[in-house]
Amino acid sequence: MYGFLLFLWLNLIVMYRTHTCGELRAAHIGQTVTLSGWVQTIRKFGAMAFVDLRDRYGITQLKLDETLLAETTLGREFVLQVSGLVIERESKNANLPTGDIELQVNDLKLLNAAKTPPFTIEDQTDGGDDLRMKYRYLDLRRASVRRNLELRYAVGRAARNYLHDAGFLDIETPFLIKSTPEGARDFVVPSRMNAGEFYALPQSPQTFKQLLMVSGYDRYYQIVKCFRDEDLRADRQPEFTQIDCEMAFVEQEDILQTFEGMIKSIFKAVKGIDYTETVQRMTWEEAMWTYGNDKPDIRFDMKIQNLKTVMQDPYAASTLQLEKGFPVFDQAETVLAISVPGCAEYARKQTDELTEWVKRPQIGLGGLAFVKCNADGTFKSSFDKFFTADQLKALASTCKAVAGDLILIVAGAEEKTRKACSDLRMEMGTRLGMRKPDEYKLLWVTDFPLFEYDAEDNRWVARHHPFTSPKPGHIERMIANNPLIEDAAAYLNHPYAGIKANAYDMVLNGNEIGGGSIRIFQKELQQKMFAALGMSEEEAQHKFGFLLGAFEYGAPPHGGIAFGFDRLCALLGGSETIRDFIAFPKNNSGRDVMIDAPSAIDAKQKKELGLN
Amino acid sequence: MYGFLLFLWLNLIVMYRTHTCGELRAAHIGQTVTLSGWVQTIRKFGAMAFVDLRDRYGITQLKLDETLLAETTLGREFVLQVSGLVIERESKNANLPTGDIELQVNDLKLLNAAKTPPFTIEDQTDGGDDLRMKYRYLDLRRASVRRNLELRYAVGRAARNYLHDAGFLDIETPFLIKSTPEGARDFVVPSRMNAGEFYALPQSPQTFKQLLMVSGYDRYYQIVKCFRDEDLRADRQPEFTQIDCEMAFVEQEDILQTFEGMIKSIFKAVKGIDYTETVQRMTWEEAMWTYGNDKPDIRFDMKIQNLKTVMQDPYAASTLQLEKGFPVFDQAETVLAISVPGCAEYARKQTDELTEWVKRPQIGLGGLAFVKCNADGTFKSSFDKFFTADQLKALASTCKAVAGDLILIVAGAEEKTRKACSDLRMEMGTRLGMRKPDEYKLLWVTDFPLFEYDAEDNRWVARHHPFTSPKPGHIERMIANNPLIEDAAAYLNHPYAGIKANAYDMVLNGNEIGGGSIRIFQKELQQKMFAALGMSEEEAQHKFGFLLGAFEYGAPPHGGIAFGFDRLCALLGGSETIRDFIAFPKNNSGRDVMIDAPSAIDAKQKKELGLN
Repeated sequence: MYGFLLFLWLNLIVMYRTHTCGELRAAHIGQTVTLSGWVQTIRKFGAMAFVDLRDRYGITQLKLDETLLAETTLGREFVLQVSGLVIERESKNANLPTGDIELQVNDLKLLNAAKTPPFTIEDQTDGGDDLRMKYRYLDLRRASVRRNLELRYAVGRAARNYLHDAGFLDIETPFLIKSTPEGARDFVVPSRMNAGEFYALPQSPQTFKQLLMVSGYDRYYQIVKCFRDEDLRADRQPEFTQIDCEMAFVEQEDILQTFEGMIKSIFKAVKGIDYTETVQRMTWEEAMWTYGNDKPDIRFDMKIQNLKTVMQDPYAASTLQLEKGFPVFDQAETVLAISVPGCAEYARKQTDELTEWVKRPQIGLGGLAFVKCNADGTFKSSFDKFFTADQLKALASTCKAVAGDLILIVAGAEEKTRKACSDLRMEMGTRLGMRKPDEYKLLWVTDFPLFEYDAEDNRWVARHHPFTSPKPGHIERMIANNPLIEDAAAYLNHPYAGIKANAYDMVLNGNEIGGGSIRIFQKELQQKMFAALGMSEEEAQHKFGFLLGAFEYGAPPHGGIAFGFDRLCALLGGSETIRDFIAFPKNNSGRDVMIDAPSAIDAKQKKELGLN
Repeated sequence: MYGFLLFLWLNLIVMYRTHTCGELRAAHIGQTVTLSGWVQTIRKFGAMAFVDLRDRYGITQLKLDETLLAETTLGREFVLQVSGLVIERESKNANLPTGDIELQVNDLKLLNAAKTPPFTIEDQTDGGDDLRMKYRYLDLRRASVRRNLELRYAVGRAARNYLHDAGFLDIETPFLIKSTPEGARDFVVPSRMNAGEFYALPQSPQTFKQLLMVSGYDRYYQIVKCFRDEDLRADRQPEFTQIDCEMAFVEQEDILQTFEGMIKSIFKAVKGIDYTETVQRMTWEEAMWTYGNDKPDIRFDMKIQNLKTVMQDPYAASTLQLEKGFPVFDQAETVLAISVPGCAEYARKQTDELTEWVKRPQIGLGGLAFVKCNADGTFKSSFDKFFTADQLKALASTCKAVAGDLILIVAGAEEKTRKACSDLRMEMGTRLGMRKPDEYKLLWVTDFPLFEYDAEDNRWVARHHPFTSPKPGHIERMIANNPLIEDAAAYLNHPYAGIKANAYDMVLNGNEIGGGSIRIFQKELQQKMFAALGMSEEEAQHKFGFLLGAFEYGAPPHGGIAFGFDRLCALLGGSETIRDFIAFPKNNSGRDVMIDAPSAIDAKQKKELGLN
């Protein structure tokens, strides 16, 4: 066994390769070259064999004669160093960049042998998720995974180049910080030198980047790991990466323009896409009522119409006014409709199937009403006995439906119905092929609510985070009113419920890829915010005293944004699964099954840390 | 109080600035501009005042008239937005890029007031270390600190550009990994979802980058935070940053060439230095005997001469042979000398002072002998009664001393004397101005010992880390011998003591800036290494089973290097203190005194983590 190793070392030649396995072309024919790589496949033809040798850069076909084959045992994933003459291939392979040539091997060194891998190293592998995660180092050899990591690198590089050109500085913020949990749980790190005390790992560099603004570093960025100890839902990771940015002396407009520029430049660098159109903008209210959610996919239209509003509008066409005698509509808090183009011909079976679809527990509606806008101008609905033909026509007109459309109508409690209608819209968009994978549509959603209501504690929580400033016009309302919610049932009537934030999200094809805000930069307003969130003065001082202190020494107006780097890469790679774009991801229990972490630590370590 | 805030918000103009404070030149005279920044100084002249307005980019002088002054209270570090006309300055300031102009302010908005800072925001501040760390956000405003962080960014950028052009991929490795302490202690992170188990923060991405090589990503890099829970000596940080790199299908030569290229390209980009000469190389043995340490400063010569070797050499000039009758030399394990140029004229007071210097506890020698090489060709030594004139001449010749040199000689136990002689050499180099701050000399030190002896446990420990391969010629010695040290007193005679590693350090001006090795890539040799370090098979499997497993599936030959990013930046910035080049450093107790971390966490958090 060791003899073999010695043989290896003593026989090493100075250079392991002269070219990569993706490099040789017809122009190299006649040259003597050396390659190193892994055996992808071996095909024997009598006394000869063809071996596909693979590295990060591609695959080159090797031609091995009898003598070489007799000397060496070869298998899949063996590591070879081969030298020989580049020759023209008899049957060229147009699908392979190196397909014009092959290497007539005259010298072969086995650099390392390999056991048979537990799954095939191919784009379409036979390995299941668990197996591939356990042997992630083999999974990472697959070209499809490699392309994902290369794309990730390209996205990061493009972001850095853009931000560099825009005068941003990459400044590292600390990882061992103070635990100030707000929302998600912190991962903590016991301190040995300060017994009984703990560091926390950052959920984001938020306060540090704000301090950098106070320090005058007016354009900061970092591509940085962040940590959240959450019960992991699908496609969440306990450690994730952000493109984290902050600017001083800016308004929302500066931020939106700077960062849509960044995303466009990433599109160009990574996908070759010239995204020249202006990025659309929409307020949160508009997004919620027009698309049913705050991260709409605007690759397709199919906007939601609020029929209830129209029915209740005294100035609307009388035919659609209140109380039509159809209890499902009349009694519902809200009635929403979408016009699905070209589906008027749906058979009973198809509309039944859609009805079942909205009744599934994930959607949870009681049923689905519809109106078919026939090609001949007539209408056929599932509630014909309650609506006249004129009323259906008015309804279709309200929905901006045209001949051939199928109007789908859902009714019920506002929040639930809105979400269901959004899900239905997305489903129909998918079924009709309107969510094209190669089309990218960006959207800014702005003017989010500043607060969310926390029913459990009957108090306000920050929708974004406690450093987000209210819209300028809403500052007075925040200052003038007591945050206390006296009547929990009527929390929506509290003046705070309507306060909008100077906050914005960037949405790509129905996914939030980034979010940020203009920050509070005045000590008094920040203190008011902490109080509004139910924090005592002492608690605010203990947790964020350094920030309140910094605001006393000349804090400039500032704001920023953070992009979810993992998600952005996944979307640009045509996937919605971030795990495929992380070299060493954790599973849904937060475990790295390859290295088997977390794991027990020894008693001595625990004792030194004052744990038991 | 809130009225003031409201006033602010409602009066915001759309753009906070048209130019930065470092931008305006004579060519802008006559333009109306808007600036934002901090008040650096205020000088009043009767009804007028001159204000220096500062931002990240520079300082611009503002001219404020009576009316504006009457309306606003101004103070140091107040944040202002000013508009006005760029006018020619009466008395120009050639030291300031904007010194040709000033801004005649006609509109002034106070964006934020400031308390008087606890220290001056100047290069030479009146603030002590503790105060500046507590108010680091103010310390970071000082131009000297800002230049350090800008330099840090430039170094990182240059490294990334070079590595990008060389085909390296930036691939993120995980932060929540498994605790496998070897040498330094791990920081650990209790897992809530896996009760009783812990993650560890990486001391380096070592095993992950090796797995990436197994996966075929043959050129990897990362500028990445690493963590070590050590008792902090001066200028160590519990979290620090590495430029971490690894390559597959390479020999040591490939690595040395690739990374001296990187450092040279950083020199060029950051300092404008064309470092065209070949980087010197030296084995560890040579460094230890010629300079007394493994990271020599080769900006100056003053090499160490081993007089004992000469004295004991039967073929050397007989005048210097063994037993001269000077017990200090005769009885010492080693006798080392340096020739200090131009110091032959040192007075008694000066040689006495040097003698005191080597007797200090930090050096700890019993005394210092010297030989003055006079201009007239004669010699005068501190041990004249033991050495004849001919012998002194022979000694001077051995030391390659010339007329005018002062030969300093130290004697004693080998290790201690070598270190003392190295310290003395550095001290003399400093005193004579030979360690020029604007001169940069790189050096590769190679062929380090693979093992170090751990007297406490009477066993071998890895000098670099357990993944470093022996020199090819030493593999047999490692395999063939039992690592057990039977005679602790004679550990130096054990075959392992002389095994050299395929390892290399890069040294800059006497500081180690990077180190790495060619790795073991064969399972059997890696197992032998773990065994040599006293690890049982079970322990090796438990800690590093994933790596041993990976080596079974086709591991390529590979190696790498990691640069201490903080140190590299400090040296390029002309400092040896890394803390000045970290935005938010920790103090020597591992505390961040600004945010007050680490700190207590609440009982609920502890309970969730299963801690008490």
